Amino acid sequence: MKTAKEYIESLYRLKLNLYLLGEKVENWVDNPIVRPSINAVAMTYKLAHEPGNEALATTNSTLTGKEINRFNSLFKSTDDMVSKVKLQRELGQRTACCFQRCVGLDGINAVFSTSYEIDRKYGTEYHRRFIDWLKYFQENDLCIAGAMTDVKGNRGVAPSRQDDPDMFVHVSERRSDGIVIRGAKANITGVVNSHEMLIMPTLRMREGDEDYSVTCAIPTDAEGVTLIYGRQPCDTRKLEGGEIDVGNYNFGGQEALIILDNVFVPWNRVFMCGETEFAIMLVERFAAYHRQSYGGCKPGIGDVLIGAASLVASYNGVRAAAHIRDKIGEMIHLVETIHACGLACSYEGGKTMAGNYQANTLLANVCKQNVTRFPYELCRLAEDIAGGILVTAPSEKDFRHPVIGEYIDKYLKGIPDVPTETRYRILMLIHAMTKGQISPSYQTESMHGAGSPMAQRIMIERETDMDYKEKLARSLAGIDVREDVLA
Amino acid sequence: MKTAKEYIESLYRLKLNLYLLGEKVENWVDNPIVRPSINAVAMTYKLAHEPGNEALATTNSTLTGKEINRFNSLFKSTDDMVSKVKLQRELGQRTACCFQRCVGLDGINAVFSTSYEIDRKYGTEYHRRFIDWLKYFQENDLCIAGAMTDVKGNRGVAPSRQDDPDMFVHVSERRSDGIVIRGAKANITGVVNSHEMLIMPTLRMREGDEDYSVTCAIPTDAEGVTLIYGRQPCDTRKLEGGEIDVGNYNFGGQEALIILDNVFVPWNRVFMCGETEFAIMLVERFAAYHRQSYGGCKPGIGDVLIGAASLVASYNGVRAAAHIRDKIGEMIHLVETIHACGLACSYEGGKTMAGNYQANTLLANVCKQNVTRFPYELCRLAEDIAGGILVTAPSEKDFRHPVIGEYIDKYLKGIPDVPTETRYRILMLIHAMTKGQISPSYQTESMHGAGSPMAQRIMIERETDMDYKEKLARSLAGIDVREDVLA
Amino acid sequence: MKTAKEYIESLYRLKLNLYLLGEKVENWVDNPIVRPSINAVAMTYKLAHEPGNEALATTNSTLTGKEINRFNSLFKSTDDMVSKVKLQRELGQRTACCFQRCVGLDGINAVFSTSYEIDRKYGTEYHRRFIDWLKYFQENDLCIAGAMTDVKGNRGVAPSRQDDPDMFVHVSERRSDGIVIRGAKANITGVVNSHEMLIMPTLRMREGDEDYSVTCAIPTDAEGVTLIYGRQPCDTRKLEGGEIDVGNYNFGGQEALIILDNVFVPWNRVFMCGETEFAIMLVERFAAYHRQSYGGCKPGIGDVLIGAASLVASYNGVRAAAHIRDKIGEMIHLVETIHACGLACSYEGGKTMAGNYQANTLLANVCKQNVTRFPYELCRLAEDIAGGILVTAPSEKDFRHPVIGEYIDKYLKGIPDVPTETRYRILMLIHAMTKGQISPSYQTESMHGAGSPMAQRIMIERETDMDYKEKLARSLAGIDVREDVLA
Amino acid sequence: MKTAKEYIESLYRLKLNLYLLGEKVENWVDNPIVRPSINAVAMTYKLAHEPGNEALATTNSTLTGKEINRFNSLFKSTDDMVSKVKLQRELGQRTACCFQRCVGLDGINAVFSTSYEIDRKYGTEYHRRFIDWLKYFQENDLCIAGAMTDVKGNRGVAPSRQDDPDMFVHVSERRSDGIVIRGAKANITGVVNSHEMLIMPTLRMREGDEDYSVTCAIPTDAEGVTLIYGRQPCDTRKLEGGEIDVGNYNFGGQEALIILDNVFVPWNRVFMCGETEFAIMLVERFAAYHRQSYGGCKPGIGDVLIGAASLVASYNGVRAAAHIRDKIGEMIHLVETIHACGLACSYEGGKTMAGNYQANTLLANVCKQNVTRFPYELCRLAEDIAGGILVTAPSEKDFRHPVIGEYIDKYLKGIPDVPTETRYRILMLIHAMTKGQISPSYQTESMHGAGSPMAQRIMIERETDMDYKEKLARSLAGIDVREDVLA
Repeated sequence: MKTAKEYIESLYRLKLNLYLLGEKVENWVDNPIVRPSINAVAMTYKLAHEPGNEALATTNSTLTGKEINRFNSLFKSTDDMVSKVKLQRELGQRTACCFQRCVGLDGINAVFSTSYEIDRKYGTEYHRRFIDWLKYFQENDLCIAGAMTDVKGNRGVAPSRQDDPDMFVHVSERRSDGIVIRGAKANITGVVNSHEMLIMPTLRMREGDEDYSVTCAIPTDAEGVTLIYGRQPCDTRKLEGGEIDVGNYNFGGQEALIILDNVFVPWNRVFMCGETEFAIMLVERFAAYHRQSYGGCKPGIGDVLIGAASLVASYNGVRAAAHIRDKIGEMIHLVETIHACGLACSYEGGKTMAGNYQANTLLANVCKQNVTRFPYELCRLAEDIAGGILVTAPSEKDFRHPVIGEYIDKYLKGIPDVPTETRYRILMLIHAMTKGQISPSYQTESMHGAGSPMAQRIMIERETDMDYKEKLARSLAGIDVREDVLA
Repeated sequence: MKTAKEYIESLYRLKLNLYLLGEKVENWVDNPIVRPSINAVAMTYKLAHEPGNEALATTNSTLTGKEINRFNSLFKSTDDMVSKVKLQRELGQRTACCFQRCVGLDGINAVFSTSYEIDRKYGTEYHRRFIDWLKYFQENDLCIAGAMTDVKGNRGVAPSRQDDPDMFVHVSERRSDGIVIRGAKANITGVVNSHEMLIMPTLRMREGDEDYSVTCAIPTDAEGVTLIYGRQPCDTRKLEGGEIDVGNYNFGGQEALIILDNVFVPWNRVFMCGETEFAIMLVERFAAYHRQSYGGCKPGIGDVLIGAASLVASYNGVRAAAHIRDKIGEMIHLVETIHACGLACSYEGGKTMAGNYQANTLLANVCKQNVTRFPYELCRLAEDIAGGILVTAPSEKDFRHPVIGEYIDKYLKGIPDVPTETRYRILMLIHAMTKGQISPSYQTESMHGAGSPMAQRIMIERETDMDYKEKLARSLAGIDVREDVLA
Repeated sequence: MKTAKEYIESLYRLKLNLYLLGEKVENWVDNPIVRPSINAVAMTYKLAHEPGNEALATTNSTLTGKEINRFNSLFKSTDDMVSKVKLQRELGQRTACCFQRCVGLDGINAVFSTSYEIDRKYGTEYHRRFIDWLKYFQENDLCIAGAMTDVKGNRGVAPSRQDDPDMFVHVSERRSDGIVIRGAKANITGVVNSHEMLIMPTLRMREGDEDYSVTCAIPTDAEGVTLIYGRQPCDTRKLEGGEIDVGNYNFGGQEALIILDNVFVPWNRVFMCGETEFAIMLVERFAAYHRQSYGGCKPGIGDVLIGAASLVASYNGVRAAAHIRDKIGEMIHLVETIHACGLACSYEGGKTMAGNYQANTLLANVCKQNVTRFPYELCRLAEDIAGGILVTAPSEKDFRHPVIGEYIDKYLKGIPDVPTETRYRILMLIHAMTKGQISPSYQTESMHGAGSPMAQRIMIERETDMDYKEKLARSLAGIDVREDVLA
Repeated sequence: MKTAKEYIESLYRLKLNLYLLGEKVENWVDNPIVRPSINAVAMTYKLAHEPGNEALATTNSTLTGKEINRFNSLFKSTDDMVSKVKLQRELGQRTACCFQRCVGLDGINAVFSTSYEIDRKYGTEYHRRFIDWLKYFQENDLCIAGAMTDVKGNRGVAPSRQDDPDMFVHVSERRSDGIVIRGAKANITGVVNSHEMLIMPTLRMREGDEDYSVTCAIPTDAEGVTLIYGRQPCDTRKLEGGEIDVGNYNFGGQEALIILDNVFVPWNRVFMCGETEFAIMLVERFAAYHRQSYGGCKPGIGDVLIGAASLVASYNGVRAAAHIRDKIGEMIHLVETIHACGLACSYEGGKTMAGNYQANTLLANVCKQNVTRFPYELCRLAEDIAGGILVTAPSEKDFRHPVIGEYIDKYLKGIPDVPTETRYRILMLIHAMTKGQISPSYQTESMHGAGSPMAQRIMIERETDMDYKEKLARSLAGIDVREDVLA
């Protein structure tokens, strides 16, 4: 297994075609805007070697029996899924942002079980190919980005009926040695920090969408791939030379737009190609895993926000006030409710035909639905506790200025024993989480990652046994025969 | 193990001193107001014999090895606690009300582990006594009410300092063969349907409160015990001879006020007596179990309400409307969030020194905190869906009236294929759950059972590792040394 | 103007065909179940004579110039509408329930302006007839129930296309001297306490629905009218002889089902007949008035609930606890938010073509939308503060029992200086408002009165100038030309 | 009255000692970070000359009778306060941010009435001085920043007992010709764009705090004044040369830290000096005005967010989806609820002893309490509707790039007829409001401006007549004598 250092070194060998703020970036590994996101991924490698965290961060491969990083594993039990969620909370706590490897992990598991079922129906050999590829991937301890979300164009129109046929990634050419794909994937987490990307369809496919029903793995520096780095709030603060105003100096999330301009994929890396009816199976299995994931990482990030809110209240001298305690109590309650849902859908998971484990679909969707709400309320409460200075504080450069720095140091002080800089630092951390560089990791991603709220809504409705609920009501109301207690 | 029939027969042998609506009730088993609550308890006996539910409803005694009803068992694993929660959901679904045995079950487990630790400190023999008593109890498959809540008088004053020394149950006399206790227990669930009651202290005791730190088991018909049946909304509808207006004809909850007017308890039934510092341990362990319990039963009751809401929407011809689907989706989401919390605190439980298992305290409190909120919103949504007729419908007697009954039948009809009576029945079931006879089981009990919201708030605050959260924030903000990813 | 006494005496002269709990009621004025609802209406007469409240409760008729009860008036200014809302709050405070006259008042104003516009288009003489009728009504200071809600049958089908043509009230025969109407009106507030009822259509009518587009006034004891009294939670407590368990002994709401079995209406009492396109105008104008009304009465009822919650907290000795103060603070906040909306839509109203004033439609709908949410939360908070004893307290008969009454008196005592009965009384008042006899007045009516939540939703969406909002956004985003500050 | 142009020109004449991002700024009027905030203020001057808006934006001076800009006026009626709120909504709609003049307006009115009452008690001449100063101010149509919030140090300690005596602004020297003040004011809105600042105390003063009880007016470029510009999220995007990524190119809010290092104030500009008991009167009157203000501006900003959300839904092709309509409906509902509160507290205001009008304190606090909640939910809903691309879109420079710009143009397109740039622009506007440059104007300022939520909570509790509410409950419960309807 790679160490964090080895992982970062391996990135230098990638020849990405990457654009950021209108310019092609050659040494992206050391780019100040990109680097924090690499560090966040690196933490997933570090934990695998960290005494005390091996049980969470590593496991044995079901394919080779060797010890591997959990992020490249297949879930072999419900306990394994619980470990995933707890690992995610640990990483959320340590980075306070998105550490970007869960989409890959969840994608691997969804493709594993779906390819098995396609083969079973069609006699294809996607599953064997996938196993071969995954062995290679585990051996080399690589990092993969899951690439599901298409750009979608007109949301009301099917992939094959869009005005522009490229609004969903599709097979533009079938060759004897492989396929050529074309299109774009949007909002792709961590792709710039990954060795490969796992292309998956993003929604239900129907007759006519055969070319759009495609799953495959490609290197991030394959020919025809262009990556465009997404802007984040306050991103250029990382270029200013300071380390306070960015709020979270070491870590950050990352999303990019992937352009696939006729990218060749050899057959041994193709895991679905044209089996339209399996697209939705893949999407829903992935979604269940990924909605489970948010029951791990977001509580971890929330822990940091709670800690920061508690500190700023202390620094202001109001930590013991009843309303502050109440608000912090509410924050804990919300964070743990999310985590409880993450744990429950893991424990209540089940085995797929292919042999790996799947999170409980209903509870995973319930988990994510809460995630689309609670982090926003947590941020609101943190802003309440922090005070208005959160968005009106002078800059780090003012604070370091020889003349006015002294004014700031004098006047922004809270309680006597805490240096002004300490208070300033914690305010900037809260700022980063609620408004700044990592707020997409905690807010917008909580909303839209793994599917927007309405997507969960639909699944929750569908996964409930409403007939049974109605039967209960009819029996109790005496519409059906009432249950005889003595029978 | 007793059957439901045997259980009910056993009740006839109890000589309760019971008052209801100002009169002493002799044959309370067949009293129309009481009987539905007996039926609800009887369901816990029925399930133990029901093919397909044995795994949930029965288990092997850790004391005797014999098969027993789960409600008299000690939790021997986290899986055992999960089974408890799933059994509770099943019973909630089948009765749509409180089935009253959980307080006893949770009390048994809390007394078991607490008495062990008292003995360990003081060399007393409470634990052995308790085991002997519990064996007898399991052998005879009896039903026990947990009796914790004191009447409390002035909430701001300690038990031993109240103007009236009887506002908390206490030892009024210590004799060589036992103790005499005095006081009252309020809001006691299911006591009228129980063979015994388990007296437990209700809050933290301090120096001076020795006489108030008492735990013991007494028969419900012991000398000196008076039971006063609590009123419930619409309780006398059960005396009207109909079966629709009550909403839930077969089942109902029950609470009573217990007066203990110098009741003698032999030593072999005394499990704590004067060890003030252990009172809070008992309270908190019981509370954690019981807050877990609500993650089982309330989702079950919620399932019935969802089913009823879905039916009434169908009967009105609006089931497919987007806003109806959205509201029912929200109802499912809330119910499953509670259940997820109930499952999570069970799976994440741990072993006590005495060897039985305890639910995770933090998550159990989080579970209950959600229970103090969501059922109210579920009822609000059900009222929204049901329509105003919910509280303006004519009576069953009007519906059966030869003249106006026809008017009602004609005019309260919804869609063509559903008889008016069917619609009327489902409306009355919803009425019973939101405003009527079983609304205390779903609303007020959700609020105050197992402790009022503020009690959970305090535990949530206390059970969180805030130091660790603050440490995370300090490190990320650079107040402490930042974590080196490469280290 | 009638006094309360004269109003009640006038009721004895009505020959209602009224059914209650399956029996025809002859002396309904003194019926214990009905009487509290009469008292509530009587308060609207009492206030007109009460020193200090005349300005709220009376006004001068725009038709005759004489002083009349405000409940029979036409709004002649926005201030008049503000006075209405303040009068409603006063009455809500004094009765803690629905006082039943607002539907009539709001109906009168809506019919006044709509009949004017029909005449203007069609040259009919509805408006003049209506003025004549209203003069008579004001002269005699009568009470009228607005009767809008039809029973509706299959909600997805238009009135004229229902399987049963009577699911909406309609003209079954047109005669030279008048019309005959047929059908039923459901959930009609206060009709049993009214001298007349104002029949209005309940929804948008379309071509083919001509017979269903009918507005007219008929006496409540007209031939062919049958009234069936709606059940309320805990209604029969009023028959038990006590005065505590009912919670609100003096006052209560009332709804009934009205059967119109071929009722003749002379032309001079017909105010719309066949003008389909005006049905929705009438409905929406009425709805705006009535949604405004809830910004008056419900805050008044809320005031009582807040006062009761404050008292019970005092009696328990916890009034000063931070969390109690916070919850009561929240209750006040919610009540005042509703009232603010009620005031705002009144102040922002405008003049109709006919000359009376109309509440601001958008804000009136916003007001009502909040009413469908906040009273439920207020009840939840009140239950939180009250404690579980709210639904487990023994009955009044137990409390009066010579033996066990003493136990109850001793054990249900709170702080020393407050008698147990005092605490018990306030608990029962809260019970009546949250679960008991007047809970429909505060909860279900808040939900469905003046239209269910979705009805407001639709109006809110429609009444907003979305084009303007989009224009603002386009300009600021630079899609349209940006505004030049210096231009 | 000044035009927008004349206002901006007048700013060049100010010699501010201003720091921004660690550097002294000489030409701050043309500084790209500062300029949008100047434009927002300039809109308040523009509207005064705008045909159709004069009635809102101007009024006649009660001091001179001349037409003046409303922002420098005294409220002479409740209608005047309503006009203020409507003007604020208009300005919020036109700028989508804080236009910074309300603190001054509200401060002027609070000082006017408070100085009157001080003089009345002490025979001082603050009020006359204030009138003189205000006449000068109105004549010259100047702009004033209200400067209330002190830096506060340890929140648990009174001003005169802080370790550092400068944590609250105070009189450091009393001279025959005036006073010298010292300290700092934090989070001061618009001070850099103002000609003067109105220094006011920030909380209740007690014995010993005499030096801290000071109100006065000073020029923003007075000797001893240093201004330090507060950072805002994404502030440096304004330096990048583009105009899309900033979201709101023309307008923005502004806050600064004011250092007062021994600033001399002549007596004719001192309006309170040592009258400790009047500090809280001033604070509370100001607060009531300013909490009212938020019922105007924030709905205006909300209108823009609603418009933007509606547009982005259209551009994505999902505008007609039921859940989108429902979310936009909820947004409208929340915005109008706030505005209704703003209107209600204006209409329900009353006259002060000095003759100007004061907003209703209870309702103004209720208004602001809602403002601390709803804009956050509005932003959450807008993020839900906008989609994840909100925080992952490439930069404007990428979009303008000759090579990858084409990719972006192709792939980020929504429905066919809308150019990609249009969609991108609206996304960036939403981004600016929810996460970017103007998010402090809509979120954090909504939370903490005019006092944090707990401050409103305290006022709401205090302004309610709880005795009356308790009396109502006691009467209805029969604890006090029940009201006799016939009496």
